Amino acid sequence: MKKFPIAKSRRIRSTSFSKRVESHGVKAYTVYNHMLLPTFFTSLEEEYHHLKQHVQLWDVSVQREIEISGSDSSELVQLMTCRDLSNAKPGICYYAPLVDLYGGLINDPLIYKLETNKWRVCIADSDVLLFAKGIAESRSLNVKIFEAKIDILAVQGPKSLKLMKKVFGEKISDLKFFRFDFFEFNNIKYLISRSGYSKQGGYEIHIENLEAGLDLYDHFFKIGSEFNLKPGAPNLIERIEGGLLSYGNDMDIGDNPLECGFDKYVNLESNIVFLGKENLIRIKKEGIKKKLMGVKIEGKSISLTEGKLMLNSNNQELGELRSAAYSPKFNKIVGIAMVKKDFCKINEKFQIKLDNSIVSGEICNLPII
Amino acid sequence: MKKFPIAKSRRIRSTSFSKRVESHGVKAYTVYNHMLLPTFFTSLEEEYHHLKQHVQLWDVSVQREIEISGSDSSELVQLMTCRDLSNAKPGICYYAPLVDLYGGLINDPLIYKLETNKWRVCIADSDVLLFAKGIAESRSLNVKIFEAKIDILAVQGPKSLKLMKKVFGEKISDLKFFRFDFFEFNNIKYLISRSGYSKQGGYEIHIENLEAGLDLYDHFFKIGSEFNLKPGAPNLIERIEGGLLSYGNDMDIGDNPLECGFDKYVNLESNIVFLGKENLIRIKKEGIKKKLMGVKIEGKSISLTEGKLMLNSNNQELGELRSAAYSPKFNKIVGIAMVKKDFCKINEKFQIKLDNSIVSGEICNLPII
Repeated sequence: MKKFPIAKSRRIRSTSFSKRVESHGVKAYTVYNHMLLPTFFTSLEEEYHHLKQHVQLWDVSVQREIEISGSDSSELVQLMTCRDLSNAKPGICYYAPLVDLYGGLINDPLIYKLETNKWRVCIADSDVLLFAKGIAESRSLNVKIFEAKIDILAVQGPKSLKLMKKVFGEKISDLKFFRFDFFEFNNIKYLISRSGYSKQGGYEIHIENLEAGLDLYDHFFKIGSEFNLKPGAPNLIERIEGGLLSYGNDMDIGDNPLECGFDKYVNLESNIVFLGKENLIRIKKEGIKKKLMGVKIEGKSISLTEGKLMLNSNNQELGELRSAAYSPKFNKIVGIAMVKKDFCKINEKFQIKLDNSIVSGEICNLPII
Repeated sequence: MKKFPIAKSRRIRSTSFSKRVESHGVKAYTVYNHMLLPTFFTSLEEEYHHLKQHVQLWDVSVQREIEISGSDSSELVQLMTCRDLSNAKPGICYYAPLVDLYGGLINDPLIYKLETNKWRVCIADSDVLLFAKGIAESRSLNVKIFEAKIDILAVQGPKSLKLMKKVFGEKISDLKFFRFDFFEFNNIKYLISRSGYSKQGGYEIHIENLEAGLDLYDHFFKIGSEFNLKPGAPNLIERIEGGLLSYGNDMDIGDNPLECGFDKYVNLESNIVFLGKENLIRIKKEGIKKKLMGVKIEGKSISLTEGKLMLNSNNQELGELRSAAYSPKFNKIVGIAMVKKDFCKINEKFQIKLDNSIVSGEICNLPII
């Protein structure tokens, strides 16, 4: 596929690390939350293998953090999500679908409660700031809402613990999955969560002191060679195989969290108050009509730029393919598709048009194993 | 400056015309409202000259249209903007700054009232949909809000009227600046506004029938050669000279409409109700502390990727340069800067660091003439 350069400007924000990732040879960018997100440095496939064996440092500053503080902050955060956060505690990362009045997905952030009246919502690609402001400013809630000046480095891969111990000390070993705590390097304290957009294990370092962050970045590469540390980025192949969803790609405001398999984060029995509650209760009662599923497709390469229709041999529409990449593991294309409920069966066959040829595929579970 | 390809995906939406602009040789894209926006086809400078002499066809589908209908739609639209829309009429394009509770700019759309309870908000680069939903769903307003499936073609340049007449007939001559009406081509009715993101005159064609839109696009090029029609895009040089602001580049939520020179769209005397009214009244009373101004800088080229600090000879910070391009007209760099009030004087001198050398510039009015 033909390549088109991205036109940079102030509107397409750089991160603290953009110059670093460029000097490390970033090969392409995407734009996410009005900001540059590296997509790869060598090739998707090479980095897929490396990510599964070694450790990578990613500039994922695009996961912007919307800070919500004030006496009504808990009320506001809860209004936006169907996940019951009434017993949320500092130190835990809450994956929480945000929904509108109709149950449509607004975003799927990780939410951090820092203290009683202070939250950070670490967002996917949509302006949650504006949704939160619209709600708060209409209800005269006592909150302060802003996008924090925080950039994020992710350390991902099976050797991430070893690397992190070398930088932040033995104490980081105590940090459990989806927990966060504070750790020091060079007398600077960092909020670090054991989280990240891969299934290979790792950490996300939330950097408020952007100058110090550059030193930290350089330090990683200075001491990382023994772990074969490489620069990297969220890997399309690995995240599809792992069933990690991407807002805007796999789901959007036209889909609800039950259709995305987020059932355990849709707490309709609880007495929490959120915008979409009534409609999600109705939707659950009526039953969903479509669902995100994995797919495997015969083929060696794909470059999806829009949703692609899936048909069966009777020319019935099965669903829409929304993300896809060639997987060296399966020697097939793997993908994530929104599939009509009747066809959400493992091994269900379909056809899809790729580059003017019709290829066949089948439905499978997520993650794809 | 090194070029980086853009990684496409479903999240970075193509428009109906993306394949057409690619076959016409688009050279770079930016991302705007989660969608691809062409930036040039030959060079910024070549297209600057062409735009001022001839006529261009632009794919500006990224100017997404948020449709707001229902019995409370007028209340909702007014809640978001400081411009008095209480007497708004169908047929007129209203440039209307959207503001939050604090008077911070959310967006600067063109608003179209289609009928008594039906509006379209044609937006710059931020998720106005989420702001509108947050407000409406918190106040239980009786409205329906969605992003319409409308793509936009702009016909811009001094020969645009002649070209448009040839396609839509003599009647289009009656359409005045910032007015809209309906016109037919091939039995399809199009909403056409006399508007567009250049100072060279022109039209914007709002396309709901996307199939028919492709025929229209091709027809333009079939009959356009006598007017020297070329594909184009909003031109950075021309729009800076013309003082056409760009949300996210020149101003954002940290700026208010008075600081952006939108005074005539800030109707504080009227009895309309909008979120930011109280704070904008206070801000106006206290007086603004900074303002968007034009600048001219010695130099032959610039490629701005972030705001740049402007200093005077006493090392005082004058302001921040936010957009800039080399202007063949002035044989200098022209730009738009947010300047501290004390320094908002014509011919005020400053220095700025570009590519490791210090160059001098001076403040001027907008538009830059």
